Amino acid sequence: MGYTALLETMGRVNDVLNAKSVLAWDARTMMPAAGAAARARQLGTLAALARDLLLADGTRRLLDRAEAEVARLPPESVERGVCAQVRAAFDHHLRIPARLVTRRAELATLGQAVWETARAAADFPAFAPLLEEIVALDRATAEAIGCAGHPYDALMARFEPGETLASLRPLFAALRAAILPILDAVAARAAPRADFLARRYPAAAQLALARQLAARVGYDLGRGRLDTTVHPFEVSFTREDVRITTRADEIWLPMSLFGALHEAGHAIYEQGVDPAYTRTPFATDLVGLYAMGGASFATHESQSRLWENHLGRSRPFWQRHFPALRAAFPDQLADVDIEAFWRAVNRVAPGLIRTEADELTYDLHIMLRVELEAALIDGSIRVPDLPEAWNAAVKASLGLDVPDAARGLLQDVHWASAQIGYFGSYTVGNVMAAQLLEAARRDPAIASGLARAETAPLQAWMAEHVHRHGRRYRRDELLRRATGRGLDPRPYTAYLAAKYGELYDLAMPAKGLELPVARD
Amino acid sequence: MGYTALLETMGRVNDVLNAKSVLAWDARTMMPAAGAAARARQLGTLAALARDLLLADGTRRLLDRAEAEVARLPPESVERGVCAQVRAAFDHHLRIPARLVTRRAELATLGQAVWETARAAADFPAFAPLLEEIVALDRATAEAIGCAGHPYDALMARFEPGETLASLRPLFAALRAAILPILDAVAARAAPRADFLARRYPAAAQLALARQLAARVGYDLGRGRLDTTVHPFEVSFTREDVRITTRADEIWLPMSLFGALHEAGHAIYEQGVDPAYTRTPFATDLVGLYAMGGASFATHESQSRLWENHLGRSRPFWQRHFPALRAAFPDQLADVDIEAFWRAVNRVAPGLIRTEADELTYDLHIMLRVELEAALIDGSIRVPDLPEAWNAAVKASLGLDVPDAARGLLQDVHWASAQIGYFGSYTVGNVMAAQLLEAARRDPAIASGLARAETAPLQAWMAEHVHRHGRRYRRDELLRRATGRGLDPRPYTAYLAAKYGELYDLAMPAKGLELPVARD
Repeated sequence: MGYTALLETMGRVNDVLNAKSVLAWDARTMMPAAGAAARARQLGTLAALARDLLLADGTRRLLDRAEAEVARLPPESVERGVCAQVRAAFDHHLRIPARLVTRRAELATLGQAVWETARAAADFPAFAPLLEEIVALDRATAEAIGCAGHPYDALMARFEPGETLASLRPLFAALRAAILPILDAVAARAAPRADFLARRYPAAAQLALARQLAARVGYDLGRGRLDTTVHPFEVSFTREDVRITTRADEIWLPMSLFGALHEAGHAIYEQGVDPAYTRTPFATDLVGLYAMGGASFATHESQSRLWENHLGRSRPFWQRHFPALRAAFPDQLADVDIEAFWRAVNRVAPGLIRTEADELTYDLHIMLRVELEAALIDGSIRVPDLPEAWNAAVKASLGLDVPDAARGLLQDVHWASAQIGYFGSYTVGNVMAAQLLEAARRDPAIASGLARAETAPLQAWMAEHVHRHGRRYRRDELLRRATGRGLDPRPYTAYLAAKYGELYDLAMPAKGLELPVARD
Repeated sequence: MGYTALLETMGRVNDVLNAKSVLAWDARTMMPAAGAAARARQLGTLAALARDLLLADGTRRLLDRAEAEVARLPPESVERGVCAQVRAAFDHHLRIPARLVTRRAELATLGQAVWETARAAADFPAFAPLLEEIVALDRATAEAIGCAGHPYDALMARFEPGETLASLRPLFAALRAAILPILDAVAARAAPRADFLARRYPAAAQLALARQLAARVGYDLGRGRLDTTVHPFEVSFTREDVRITTRADEIWLPMSLFGALHEAGHAIYEQGVDPAYTRTPFATDLVGLYAMGGASFATHESQSRLWENHLGRSRPFWQRHFPALRAAFPDQLADVDIEAFWRAVNRVAPGLIRTEADELTYDLHIMLRVELEAALIDGSIRVPDLPEAWNAAVKASLGLDVPDAARGLLQDVHWASAQIGYFGSYTVGNVMAAQLLEAARRDPAIASGLARAETAPLQAWMAEHVHRHGRRYRRDELLRRATGRGLDPRPYTAYLAAKYGELYDLAMPAKGLELPVARD
């Protein structure tokens, strides 16, 4: 049986990619710094082996046989879907030289340590040579992949198949058109108090609470674990072992709580993939050579942003969970009520740090990154000119001066991880979260549950319409099946207008619904 | 260059085996239990990939070319040594079907969870089916490898190349001839007090002290880490990342301290391998498909037992370190002095548990395991009859009744890890430790240093004569280079006679030196 044998080979690819993820998790949580160089080589070797397994002559023969075997099944069958994904990955990787794959894995590991040191010292020149190499690698990769439009499209396609600069820019324009008027209106209002978020909150108690919240929203700690790292992340080694990390700032309470909710959202997705898909291409990103069950990175972000923001910063959520928070921090929150807490964690304040941005300005951070990355890749900006370009973009878009590189272009781990092309997925994820939530709310049981922050009905809906499918459907097909249409910014802009209208008592037209129609 | 390319391929094999070790470490320290089944498959896949890389047609061609290239170099050159080891491994693995390799890796991971559950419930029947499969697997493996003598020899050769039942049994006989008279004489004496070892010692303080001791004897925590596990172990992912674990029993102080010294001894060895050997066959067990720098498992045990016993239970060691111990536990040790502590941690008391055995009876535990394993492999004992055979052997050799399987044949992790053939290495390691120490002591600076527990000169000697060589020399050649002769039980038996003679005030002839001469 060609198909069965193909599945077994893809199972081995999945095993190797999961092993690679374990090594990467270990490198970020447990490994002594001295181990970085050897670990980089180990990751490089595993990446190359996964690619070699995929591209082996034997695999190609199995694929040919499997395609012939399943040719008479319906196009929407699992078997046809598996073969199509393997074929697409096969064609993709045939174009990319092995040395680029190995070097990417090595750089992504070495980069972590270099970036951490450079960021701690706010020293961009210390990071620049690595970034030069990553940009050069990605330009070579983009050229190898080839595409009709901008070379950045080829890089984005690794994270968000089908997404292009040409499709992102109108989306960005639509969001800007909705966000900027709200932002102007908010700026004219008095800011709610948020002083109490910056009181002293011991880290251990924060982490205990973060763990508890993650579990309450549905993260199964029996199939995972929560650790602390500089840059929080989620990673899965099959649905039975899905790990998250967070960090606690002792004088900034929101970081640990919303960080844990964000990563829990990612983890719940991975834990919910159909067990029948374990080790199959429906739980393996064969193009990105990354073991995960999520349909795309934006789809993944839709689940993390759902829990971090759409639900985690909603009034009902804190009506339900604020008592536990106050029980953990009775002194710090003695003069705070639910309403004040909810307003504080939604306070709009344009800032320098993406991961700490409020929902309203968050996408502005993304837009400037996407444009700078695209410019790096097409050569219209060079790495030495990047600090100036970054600072100018932050000034133009957020009105802020960047005091140093640590709060500027060194703040994100993505470049150090060789993930140029990723950022757009965050904003697409925000849009998807609102769109999915709007569709789910059509069920009265879900809508009335959410009004009391009873999220089990919503989780069941997400499990049914999103999680269980793993990578079986492409993002836009998943969206169409779940919501009846392709990516549509209107639920998101309507959500922002309604939310900030209420928070800041704005008299604004609900512009969101008049924006350009959905892509389909 | 065939040789250079061969080295790079062996580097990839080393990378995969180190990745396998990371996954195994994670499985025993960090992984949620739910991840066990997927992890077993991942380990199986990595084991198979390492073997496939080694046995690939391309590797054989590289090996042929490399051998031709280096044929005119001296036989003792690095290049000839590398080629010889790759050739030996190649020939070895060609004989063993791939399915046995994959299944071994899977069983070793699955076995851990099954064993832990069975041991906790003292339920041998729950473990027996797995053991049946492991024994069958090892019988098939032994048959595939083939050897002139007992099939057990083929299994031992994976851990201790050159060791056979025919060579072990005379060694065992010599040790028994030395140990049993001492044991009889000790039994006639009053036991020293040891009540204070069983007072309540909080685990956190024990672990802090264990970490401190491990560091003081030379374990570089900057290239490693110390965690806690049910069954302590050491594992390396290159010399730059060598990890150990220990465990603390709150009412039995010696476990954490001597456990940490034991594993630190292993770790110091791995950390001391010549950096030039990283990723080469001199830091890879290509026969056992295990990434390690130690020359053999007995050589490894010689370093762990050196620190655990020969030095760690010596009077000078506690003259130096007891003050720190008492500072950590002032109440528990208020009525204890150095002399009493030293006598307590050397108290002879035949017991049921190998890992808690005193030095004098420890090897008796090993001997009974080796004989039972050999009988399982040659079929003279079957798994269902093993409990009765075990209990009879414990009665005959230690004079004890076994109350349950947890304190009987379920106590060790080795069978669950598919490591039949390993146990003999412990006793050979004890013998080697004494032999190496005797040779080192010929240097007056080392001997006088040890009298004050200043171990830096000894560590330098071990680094020079043992650690840095990695797997370059076989165990017996390493011994000859370091001590002038092959394995010789006389330093060990002399050490036991002198030590227990002093501890128990025995009037005994120093029989050790009249025992059969060294093998060479």
